[in-house]
Amino acid sequence: MQLNETHDPTLRSWVTSADLESSDFPLQNLPFGTFRHDDAEPWRAGVAIGDRIVDLSRLAAAAPFEGLAAQALGACAAPAHEGRLNGLMALGADHWHALRLALSRGLRVDGAGETSPVRAALEAALRPMAGAHHAAPAHIGDYTDFYISLHHATAVGLQFRPDQPLLPNYKWVPIGYHGRASSLGVDTAFRRPVGQTRPPREGAPPAFGPSQRLDYELEMAIYIGQGNPQGQRIPLANAEAHVFGLGLLNDWSARDIQAWEYQPLGPFLGKSFASTLSPWIVTLEALAPFRTQLRRPAGDPAPLPYLASEQNAAHGAFDVQLQVSISTEQSRRAGAPAHILARSNFREAYWTVAQLVAHHTVNGCNLQAGDLMGTGTLSGPRPDEAGSLLELTEGGKTALALPWGEQRGFLQDGDEICLSAYCAAPGQRRIGFGNATGRVLPADWA
Amino acid sequence: MQLNETHDPTLRSWVTSADLESSDFPLQNLPFGTFRHDDAEPWRAGVAIGDRIVDLSRLAAAAPFEGLAAQALGACAAPAHEGRLNGLMALGADHWHALRLALSRGLRVDGAGETSPVRAALEAALRPMAGAHHAAPAHIGDYTDFYISLHHATAVGLQFRPDQPLLPNYKWVPIGYHGRASSLGVDTAFRRPVGQTRPPREGAPPAFGPSQRLDYELEMAIYIGQGNPQGQRIPLANAEAHVFGLGLLNDWSARDIQAWEYQPLGPFLGKSFASTLSPWIVTLEALAPFRTQLRRPAGDPAPLPYLASEQNAAHGAFDVQLQVSISTEQSRRAGAPAHILARSNFREAYWTVAQLVAHHTVNGCNLQAGDLMGTGTLSGPRPDEAGSLLELTEGGKTALALPWGEQRGFLQDGDEICLSAYCAAPGQRRIGFGNATGRVLPADWA
Repeated sequence: MQLNETHDPTLRSWVTSADLESSDFPLQNLPFGTFRHDDAEPWRAGVAIGDRIVDLSRLAAAAPFEGLAAQALGACAAPAHEGRLNGLMALGADHWHALRLALSRGLRVDGAGETSPVRAALEAALRPMAGAHHAAPAHIGDYTDFYISLHHATAVGLQFRPDQPLLPNYKWVPIGYHGRASSLGVDTAFRRPVGQTRPPREGAPPAFGPSQRLDYELEMAIYIGQGNPQGQRIPLANAEAHVFGLGLLNDWSARDIQAWEYQPLGPFLGKSFASTLSPWIVTLEALAPFRTQLRRPAGDPAPLPYLASEQNAAHGAFDVQLQVSISTEQSRRAGAPAHILARSNFREAYWTVAQLVAHHTVNGCNLQAGDLMGTGTLSGPRPDEAGSLLELTEGGKTALALPWGEQRGFLQDGDEICLSAYCAAPGQRRIGFGNATGRVLPADWA
Repeated sequence: MQLNETHDPTLRSWVTSADLESSDFPLQNLPFGTFRHDDAEPWRAGVAIGDRIVDLSRLAAAAPFEGLAAQALGACAAPAHEGRLNGLMALGADHWHALRLALSRGLRVDGAGETSPVRAALEAALRPMAGAHHAAPAHIGDYTDFYISLHHATAVGLQFRPDQPLLPNYKWVPIGYHGRASSLGVDTAFRRPVGQTRPPREGAPPAFGPSQRLDYELEMAIYIGQGNPQGQRIPLANAEAHVFGLGLLNDWSARDIQAWEYQPLGPFLGKSFASTLSPWIVTLEALAPFRTQLRRPAGDPAPLPYLASEQNAAHGAFDVQLQVSISTEQSRRAGAPAHILARSNFREAYWTVAQLVAHHTVNGCNLQAGDLMGTGTLSGPRPDEAGSLLELTEGGKTALALPWGEQRGFLQDGDEICLSAYCAAPGQRRIGFGNATGRVLPADWA
């Protein structure tokens, strides 16, 4: 995608909080989400700008836009989707662009805009971000989780299969599996899962109880916009047109439950108890200035033709800086700041977003608006760039020292994990993703 | 569940086709589904009786019932669910029973009923089954596929892992994984999937093209009624109250795609291209006369306490006779009847429906109304009771001879697979499930 006027880093918004260097949500971002301030309100679609949210239902009532932008805005107000973005997602990239452009023009400072009826409608539709609650930004029909960090796959493989950490298919197949959609949420607090774990010795019954090896996974969330009819694959060249945008995903994992159950059909109860999403979807258009080349190690085989193009290799990856931090009951009592466990970057992934879409549909599988694809844990090449405790603590063997005096092998009750991310590049405004935050509650177990 | 007046085998319906011994849908069955006769019509919820369908939207408009039955009927007419049964499913077992009882009384022949306004409303709501099209009976949020035939797991394990066909977790964990919900359908015709398969020799690139080892899987479909809040498990003793009923499921499988992709995270594109459901859900209440004991081989370990009860062991299984048949382009041209590939029985499964629900939620995973659980391939103990070609042909090595002169290792384009099932017991009316029928179309591949 070419850069256009919405990417101009010199644009400023009359929502002045959007112009702070530290804001995740400048005028160049305009991410979409679902919010409300009160449990008695219906959920509403919104766009983040600085410390405000544009209420798209309220804006739609004022009908300030024309053409595709008006259609796109109307789809955000549709009560059929209960404030989720599925209606907008299904319309396709031309509509997404038109709405983004109309919002960018209406929210920017320029001589004409300041007195326009569009600006008046936008001002009337602004709500504070403070105090907003969020739901998943889409009704997620199907959730697929991939495994696209070579570094994560190798490090985890070493623990589960020391003789063969990286399986022969890894560099050919973007490995993925179906995840549980019902337990996806935003701002999650969830009970520590209970389940079977490996028998203490051969021939003994499995152990049963609360997981003792509870972990997080630092992932990005990819939201499908327009889907494809069953039986009709999406070619690589067209794959990104089907992607609405990206968010953050914490795929909480009970390593002990997973290790006992996962053969031969893959992870199940070790993952399905909860997954945490960030509230905002940053559109692929907003990410255009942060495209980068795919970093496939020299000597690795070229992908099969349905997963290969020069365009994809040169521009298919995204430079997104990722971070995961922890706070605990003790640290919060002491007022200590959250501790950064690791930093990583989405550009280190082995497969691109477009390759995941092309692969997912090559067999005729139909994607639908609002479907979610997780990237899998996005560990970087260095040990301190690992996106899970499993890697950082070598399976719990090397406890991490936290600056307030505690140690962690795996997560304890009360621990809160916060994922965050942003894009930055010389000459560009910083684009933030906000946070995906979740907290471990004690198991329901007497 | 105790038997009640709806199970009385002497009851007869004034819909006389329901009284034929050969009917899948006598008065004692009353399965629920979604239908329409014309693509321009909205989908409607219906109940099968003989060769007729009670249109529940039309019936609801006449408001013939009172109390819970009226509420339950109203939930079937709700336009919010687009003719699917999710609204009824969410209400719970008391409502399901009340509606079944009201329908049974209204449809039966008795002195009082014949002139009642209820009968008049039912007569006005009858539509022919002939010419009806069907959609999936529920909006299926999440689809989980289990693996509960010990015989299937052993036979398949022998082919994928000859050294260790049955993994150490099998007799403790009801093995399951998340499936793809978007590609579930009724009366499916689907394109042969395309994908990567194992490299022809070590170090070579994978092969790529239409699957050469396309197979069916004979499964039962379990539909969740009322769900559970996230974090709150469903105990075994209460598990069946969360199950609305059972249908049939063909989990089409591309064995060659699956074999190359499935390590370490399980089946993905080898399954996600299409799965075929039968149109009708037979309620657990209708199946009450066909309960039987769980057949756990002597010497096998007792399940962990959360999966064990005397009630479950004695009555938790269902005696459902299963059948899979094939027709081909050649057989249909010749007017030959479909050939029965195998017969099997649901009672041979290693885990019960209740155990699957209790296991699925033990970690706090939330089930939702309309969720689908597949049993996995229901092969019986004898080789000719195998529920897939993988087993019947020993991985394609021993081609099956079809009576019209063709042979099959795996499925060819034009092949149509039909699953069917019924319950029968001395002194009971036969209860049928109808059919799950799907056909293989040529790959989209030039």
